[in-house]
Amino acid sequence: MRVVIYGVGAIGGVVAAALDRAGIETIGIARGAMLAAMQDTGLRLRAPGIDELRDVPAVASPAEVDWRADDMILLCMKSQDTQGALEDLRAAGVHDQPIFCAQNGVANERAALRMFPNVHGVTVMMPALYLVPGEVAVFTEPKLGIFDLGRYPGGTDHDDRRMAEALEAANIGAFTHENVMASKRGKLLLNLVNILKATLGNSADPGPLKTAIRAEAEAVYRAAGLDWVEVDDSDPRRGEMMRPVDALPGVARVGGSTNQSLLRGATRLETDYLNGEIALLGRLHGVPTPVNAALCRVADHLTRSALKPGDLSLSQLEALLSP
Amino acid sequence: MRVVIYGVGAIGGVVAAALDRAGIETIGIARGAMLAAMQDTGLRLRAPGIDELRDVPAVASPAEVDWRADDMILLCMKSQDTQGALEDLRAAGVHDQPIFCAQNGVANERAALRMFPNVHGVTVMMPALYLVPGEVAVFTEPKLGIFDLGRYPGGTDHDDRRMAEALEAANIGAFTHENVMASKRGKLLLNLVNILKATLGNSADPGPLKTAIRAEAEAVYRAAGLDWVEVDDSDPRRGEMMRPVDALPGVARVGGSTNQSLLRGATRLETDYLNGEIALLGRLHGVPTPVNAALCRVADHLTRSALKPGDLSLSQLEALLSP
Repeated sequence: MRVVIYGVGAIGGVVAAALDRAGIETIGIARGAMLAAMQDTGLRLRAPGIDELRDVPAVASPAEVDWRADDMILLCMKSQDTQGALEDLRAAGVHDQPIFCAQNGVANERAALRMFPNVHGVTVMMPALYLVPGEVAVFTEPKLGIFDLGRYPGGTDHDDRRMAEALEAANIGAFTHENVMASKRGKLLLNLVNILKATLGNSADPGPLKTAIRAEAEAVYRAAGLDWVEVDDSDPRRGEMMRPVDALPGVARVGGSTNQSLLRGATRLETDYLNGEIALLGRLHGVPTPVNAALCRVADHLTRSALKPGDLSLSQLEALLSP
Repeated sequence: MRVVIYGVGAIGGVVAAALDRAGIETIGIARGAMLAAMQDTGLRLRAPGIDELRDVPAVASPAEVDWRADDMILLCMKSQDTQGALEDLRAAGVHDQPIFCAQNGVANERAALRMFPNVHGVTVMMPALYLVPGEVAVFTEPKLGIFDLGRYPGGTDHDDRRMAEALEAANIGAFTHENVMASKRGKLLLNLVNILKATLGNSADPGPLKTAIRAEAEAVYRAAGLDWVEVDDSDPRRGEMMRPVDALPGVARVGGSTNQSLLRGATRLETDYLNGEIALLGRLHGVPTPVNAALCRVADHLTRSALKPGDLSLSQLEALLSP
């Protein structure tokens, strides 16, 4: 068994290094400076009590992987990059190997199932950070994170149990879940604020906007008949396994994944698959979602104007949100 | 009112020229050699009794359109190009304007609704051909084709009626439909053979494969609780409005849109959104779809090996389809 981590950013980097530490064969598909750093120097994992350089093999594309029937694939790219990644996997000869979608949002599983028969969802609870090329950090203890896993659209199988066992060995709390998409819908509720943090900066108080986007999302879920499982601080597993730390020696947290994308100069954010999922469901089921819909246009504005987190004030954001 | 035809291939070209003939303001968003030909010479429409060069304005991207509140947008690119087109529309300032998805398959409407509030489906029955850059043909009379139109996910509205009126003026039979996606699912059943024609050539008899892919699709629709409307030759509108002609002076038909893509050297085919839709629905609802699923891999093989229609025999295709 080998785990192929496709997309080595913050999450993919932490998981790859953690699996390697546990003696589980792992290979990363990375790009740009991260690929070069992994090939030149290795992958450095920072976590409470951990600072290790792991020699995780890395390649540039699925075509460079010597695929095996017992490989398990963990998709860790952002949702906007999933379709191209799936096409590259198929072109490289991947067919029946299980594909685990670790991305935020709930759209990746459907895209993968269009092309592959064996698709799984993963809810990722892991406050990870891509520090510099070749270095990632995670800010929680005693576990490095908590993952829910299950087949898409439902159930669990042998592959979920195999993956959970590997993750547990790597000190990631891993739970098979008969309805993993309900868990991912719970995670999506938490990710709706990513764009607010990316716009206003981490320290700003988004005030009633945060309440509004959550209320829209819950109304949409109910109208669509979609259940969800809370995976916020009310999840008792967090207090037990995922106690947050604010900093590691010399390393401060910078907030959510959308912040990190913006800080790195990404040209597209994941917002269409987070707040945009709520807007889509609202339009399908006749529920108004003006704030989530407008935040998708704000995300587009942020990248096209090359703004950084905190460049807009709350009043500037509210002006953008008014019709 | 103006119609923006986004994607000027066979269908987009015929519709653009036909609208222009009817005196309806039209602009095309085209690329490559088609764009150059339209800008240099115009757009030549061939049809029974018609051979006209129309001076339809054309630009390279949505950013070059001076968008107006009463524009109506007709998406005519292939499904695999829709996501990028939607992002370019938003970046160009499109917001509430109606977006009509004229593509084959049933996935484009959902992609558009994620980003825009006013989305419509269009079932296109129009045997059109992209002859050379700047020239398109359609092989039917007395109408140039028949379109069903309606809001996504359901209903009809003022925009559907406005678009139907414009199409009717352009000699395209246009029908508003309260459940347009049922009509599009009927069309999808017809498009499932596109990949067979593209593989074997138009003249080959795909034999039991054609029966098998249709049977899989109907089983999938039933399991998913999805209704459909037949839009094949049993649709009485076809006999009345869309009598096929086999050739125009100097112009022979070359078959379906997948054939045309392959002949033009496309690197990706639409198969993932045709046979792949059936495979996706089968996986979601527990219905085996081995033939449609395998045909998606065949499509990938055709483009990557740069094969042309008819390069494979039926026995070679059957060998590719066996697990």
